Amino acid sequence: MGNCINHPDRETNYICMKHNIFLCEECLECRDPDIYCKFRPSCPIYFITKKGFESSENETEKKEYTVIFEPGKKKVTVSAGTNLLKASQKADIYVNASCNGKGSCGKCRLIIQSGKVDSKKTSLLSDKEKEKGYVLACQSKILEDIIVKIPEETIEKKLKAAGMGEQATKKLSGLVEKIEPIVEKIPLQLDLPTLEDTVSDLDRLTRALKKLGYDISKMSTNIRVMRQLTASVRNDHFKVVASVLWKKCSSEIVDVSPAAHDEKKSLGMAVDLGTTSIVVYIVNMADGAVLSAASGHNRQAACGDDVINRIICSEKDGVGKLKKMAVSTINNLTKRALDSIEEDHKQVENIVISGNTIMTHLLLGIEAKYIRREPYIPTVSQFPIMKAGEIGLKAAPYAGVFVMPGPAGYVGGDIVSGVLYTGFHQLEEFTLFIDIGTNGEIVLGNNEFLMTAACSAGPAFEGGGIRWGMRAEDGAIEKIILAPDSFEPAYSTVENKPARGICGSGMIDLLSEMLLKQLIGQDGKFIMEPDHPRFTRFNDEPAFIIEFGKNIDSEEDIIFTQSDIKSLILSKAAVYAGFSILLEQVGMDFSSVHQMIITGGFGQYLDVEKAITIGLLPDIEREKFKYMGNSSIAGAYMALLSNTFRSRAVAISNTMTYLDFSSNNGFMEEFTKAQFLPHTDANLFPNIHKTKTRKESVSC
Amino acid sequence: MGNCINHPDRETNYICMKHNIFLCEECLECRDPDIYCKFRPSCPIYFITKKGFESSENETEKKEYTVIFEPGKKKVTVSAGTNLLKASQKADIYVNASCNGKGSCGKCRLIIQSGKVDSKKTSLLSDKEKEKGYVLACQSKILEDIIVKIPEETIEKKLKAAGMGEQATKKLSGLVEKIEPIVEKIPLQLDLPTLEDTVSDLDRLTRALKKLGYDISKMSTNIRVMRQLTASVRNDHFKVVASVLWKKCSSEIVDVSPAAHDEKKSLGMAVDLGTTSIVVYIVNMADGAVLSAASGHNRQAACGDDVINRIICSEKDGVGKLKKMAVSTINNLTKRALDSIEEDHKQVENIVISGNTIMTHLLLGIEAKYIRREPYIPTVSQFPIMKAGEIGLKAAPYAGVFVMPGPAGYVGGDIVSGVLYTGFHQLEEFTLFIDIGTNGEIVLGNNEFLMTAACSAGPAFEGGGIRWGMRAEDGAIEKIILAPDSFEPAYSTVENKPARGICGSGMIDLLSEMLLKQLIGQDGKFIMEPDHPRFTRFNDEPAFIIEFGKNIDSEEDIIFTQSDIKSLILSKAAVYAGFSILLEQVGMDFSSVHQMIITGGFGQYLDVEKAITIGLLPDIEREKFKYMGNSSIAGAYMALLSNTFRSRAVAISNTMTYLDFSSNNGFMEEFTKAQFLPHTDANLFPNIHKTKTRKESVSC
Repeated sequence: MGNCINHPDRETNYICMKHNIFLCEECLECRDPDIYCKFRPSCPIYFITKKGFESSENETEKKEYTVIFEPGKKKVTVSAGTNLLKASQKADIYVNASCNGKGSCGKCRLIIQSGKVDSKKTSLLSDKEKEKGYVLACQSKILEDIIVKIPEETIEKKLKAAGMGEQATKKLSGLVEKIEPIVEKIPLQLDLPTLEDTVSDLDRLTRALKKLGYDISKMSTNIRVMRQLTASVRNDHFKVVASVLWKKCSSEIVDVSPAAHDEKKSLGMAVDLGTTSIVVYIVNMADGAVLSAASGHNRQAACGDDVINRIICSEKDGVGKLKKMAVSTINNLTKRALDSIEEDHKQVENIVISGNTIMTHLLLGIEAKYIRREPYIPTVSQFPIMKAGEIGLKAAPYAGVFVMPGPAGYVGGDIVSGVLYTGFHQLEEFTLFIDIGTNGEIVLGNNEFLMTAACSAGPAFEGGGIRWGMRAEDGAIEKIILAPDSFEPAYSTVENKPARGICGSGMIDLLSEMLLKQLIGQDGKFIMEPDHPRFTRFNDEPAFIIEFGKNIDSEEDIIFTQSDIKSLILSKAAVYAGFSILLEQVGMDFSSVHQMIITGGFGQYLDVEKAITIGLLPDIEREKFKYMGNSSIAGAYMALLSNTFRSRAVAISNTMTYLDFSSNNGFMEEFTKAQFLPHTDANLFPNIHKTKTRKESVSC
Repeated sequence: MGNCINHPDRETNYICMKHNIFLCEECLECRDPDIYCKFRPSCPIYFITKKGFESSENETEKKEYTVIFEPGKKKVTVSAGTNLLKASQKADIYVNASCNGKGSCGKCRLIIQSGKVDSKKTSLLSDKEKEKGYVLACQSKILEDIIVKIPEETIEKKLKAAGMGEQATKKLSGLVEKIEPIVEKIPLQLDLPTLEDTVSDLDRLTRALKKLGYDISKMSTNIRVMRQLTASVRNDHFKVVASVLWKKCSSEIVDVSPAAHDEKKSLGMAVDLGTTSIVVYIVNMADGAVLSAASGHNRQAACGDDVINRIICSEKDGVGKLKKMAVSTINNLTKRALDSIEEDHKQVENIVISGNTIMTHLLLGIEAKYIRREPYIPTVSQFPIMKAGEIGLKAAPYAGVFVMPGPAGYVGGDIVSGVLYTGFHQLEEFTLFIDIGTNGEIVLGNNEFLMTAACSAGPAFEGGGIRWGMRAEDGAIEKIILAPDSFEPAYSTVENKPARGICGSGMIDLLSEMLLKQLIGQDGKFIMEPDHPRFTRFNDEPAFIIEFGKNIDSEEDIIFTQSDIKSLILSKAAVYAGFSILLEQVGMDFSSVHQMIITGGFGQYLDVEKAITIGLLPDIEREKFKYMGNSSIAGAYMALLSNTFRSRAVAISNTMTYLDFSSNNGFMEEFTKAQFLPHTDANLFPNIHKTKTRKESVSC
């Protein structure tokens, strides 16, 4: 064993016998010239066992095993003892791993069909499941050639990712009088060279730009353009299209193409870089029309559901791994979106990326490790305009990339996008804004101030730490009502697929229903009759049976346990405490709030009445609530269209004051008070109390 | 046979059997990932013969031959039929090839010691030489394994490259009050992060810069810096050194290093990128002291002596080949200069390159092909500030590179450097400036105008096309006098090494002496007695024997032929005609010239009196002549020290008006008149005439 020459903090079993250096598995695989070139041309790599040195390619010694994943028969070869979750990542198979391999979320369930693995004990699998071959991938080491089945609930499903909606698109595309792309395409007819006019090609180009009124004193170019210039200008009789990248205080000619080659559309791309899901919009830069869209899971999910686990993973495996995962997700989505309209990625010349601070850092390969350590400092808040080629995004290499600025480590560009889109920073009245996604970020403010905070809601709303919790994927129970007397559930699932689990909105529905139907008390504790057919116990805890033995693979009951309720209450309490503290800071209460805007992927399925019932949202006039869809993608789209919006985003980020709850003494108190249904102070929920009484009287 | 997939204009014998594509020899060899990665991992390459497909690695078929070069025993394997000059290039052996392999210069003389080559007939080798095994490398194809001797006259010799001289260095280093590097290093103490001050690392950095008075609104950064920032700021308690690259209208933070790592000198590099030789100065950016220097042949010489041949070569083999040759020459010299002072290339953060327009284009990989075609348009005149990493120069990858601007295709940055250094553009009086190097560029002007032109002097002054002509390398006859009656020559050579040939200054001496001693007439024709022991005939032409059978390898006589004289007269006539036309354009004559500045590698060995005698220089007061050394490197050095000088260089380039002689009707007339010794109009050379008469009377 030794330490990788590229990553001195990693121990590795591989040694290059030619150069006598250790290399970790990532370095063996990667072809990144920065890392790999030192060892090219490829040279014999040996695998070290306790017995001594053996070539990793020595098949007769059989220190490598084959893993076949069913269905699909994807095959990978891994060394003995490899973690099954890592093997699935190597095979590029999506396995939900919310807790980043800690063994605590119980999501990475795989079924061993043949062969042996060494699995740690876990209470997250029932005996019945264990009998059927279920293991947690992250807790299993490969000891032989194995065949693994990916059960229905673990397979990557289409995520019901939120878009702006058609209406919003229409509204937004009329927002600007003139589209100002990041990379402007300028058709030019250069003067033909003569013996009387012998200035260089580049001078000829800038002269033409000057004639059109451009300030060439602030314009530069680069070596790539100079190399292509000679041929480009002569290809179509000195008729060209110059692409100019506008930066903060200067501009750069980034491409010059013959006019004759320039018949294709110039495209833009807006990206919502979510922790869970990524959404890509392809936009025609000529008129702002959204031509196509695609969304999918952020591949980084293999390193954990929440941003903290992602950072931990980046510290362990290097930020490059997370960067690669995010870039490949975006590139796959870009390809899908472009293929559907038969356009080429080289036409994408403008990109805006909106994501939380940790996601943008990891996408760009920037360390995010100090964001999770007091005093929570991000490396960058305002990103310079970059080029797609520098990041590795599938687009014209010179495409200008604007990354939404983020004011703090836990309030990022996605929230700035949200403010930009909803526009409440221009109103005199006060708005309370919340984006409930994987994280919960809150903004309170008006045209005079913007105060922001992030509440560690935990992963419960996204299904994390909940026995049958899941994201809003196909088969997730998203709405549920209990019959007044029998408590028989009636539910609907995403895409009406057979129930596989329950997502955030379903859990809020269920909690509210159980409270109203008095199956639980205001403290969340079960008060249901133990002999009720829907009552059961799981790991010595009371639980409510939502559906009997319906799970496709395991035929287990889908249940909602006492622990699940506890997790959900902690999450909702954190959000409500966040609202309270933010208002308290500026000497306000909920009555001064003119509107409450809910955005984010989770918010779209939320039943506001039920969320108030459990005390997640405040008990204010219902007409004050507005759901505004995926405001992160909407803000990114706006910034794509106009420099006014890009500047406005920077101004919004600069205006925001971040309040850190972890150093706020009042927060813990409010948090404790909110761990009750709806709240220890019933006066805060006057309308709910009434509703409840009424319902109680009905059921009595 | 097929065409290379990377270079469709090249036919090739190599095919990749795995990918079924053709690859030219360059592509087989190069490891440039842009070109080569398509075919990685390395795959079987086959060599096609008429018989069919055979593996190039198949030794038994013997389609490849070994070439061993003596002395040194450098060995290369080449395919059958390979040109011997190309084989020497592959072996990285310097072989003079002034005419770029046309077979016309006769410089690439090699001796075949064993094995067979197929050589074309040539009159450039005597029968005696042919008997000894001499061949012209460019005219010979390899048919067997061979051993080749590189004769003394062909071996790379130390070039007597001109520097600024110690005096000039001292004078120049005191020129500026404050050194303004291209990349400024700014030590900063950032505020330590606290819960009350949670701005990002980058904002913390820019805040510190703002405190020092920097205009951060015009400052940006890049992804590389953002990636290193997290660790850099924390390595030494938020004490860092920021490197800021100053551009035309903005600046970029290009590096941030922990203060503790920054104990080494910041270095600068001035480069004179000559067609023949390249000179590198290493400068301490703290005080402007020149710490070391190195000079050597431009490796591009393998593609011809003059700029036209270089362009032709770039059109044939791709500009990348020429780029690589120039970059590797500079990098080798940089290494040599840095090694001598035990400093590291990563400390080089500032680079200024001064070269003619074609040299700078080729160095940067920019096409120069239209410079040789009417109306002679360069691609770029004013280069943006680039980074060393973009060009491939051995330096800090973020080192700022300023390339001296050049006003025209045939008057480039080296001439702008010359004006900057000599400073005559600030004088009221008129100056005539000439840089006699591989090209001859002239500037006429004062503080009101600068008119410039290039005269196609041809390669004679550099030894091209002259039987025993050579550059000012070791063993070149640089000064020569003939005894009054016997005409016995007395000469001195460069470094006092045994005579191997004659360089430009030697030829001017000799021509002047032969004219004064009446061995030739004013038309340059031999009038020497045919029975004189120093008289001989070569290829049916009269010739003067400078030295009997002294050449080390061939034991041939070193002679000066009628053709040599003709070539030299054409060259000097072109220069003189250039002066005349330039003056005529502005309605002046030589009498209005206040000073005549001669610079350039060739100029330093020039005997002004003798140059006037043959009519190369005008017959004006001798005290008006000033030799100012290598003004290209001196100008580059000045630009390295200060932004004032860099701006001044741009201003000089913009002020220059280029006069194209090829489209000037008067030029041919003046050129014809000047093809006489010293000139058809004897009145132009009143003082020479007198001298001559006096000498004639002595010899009579």
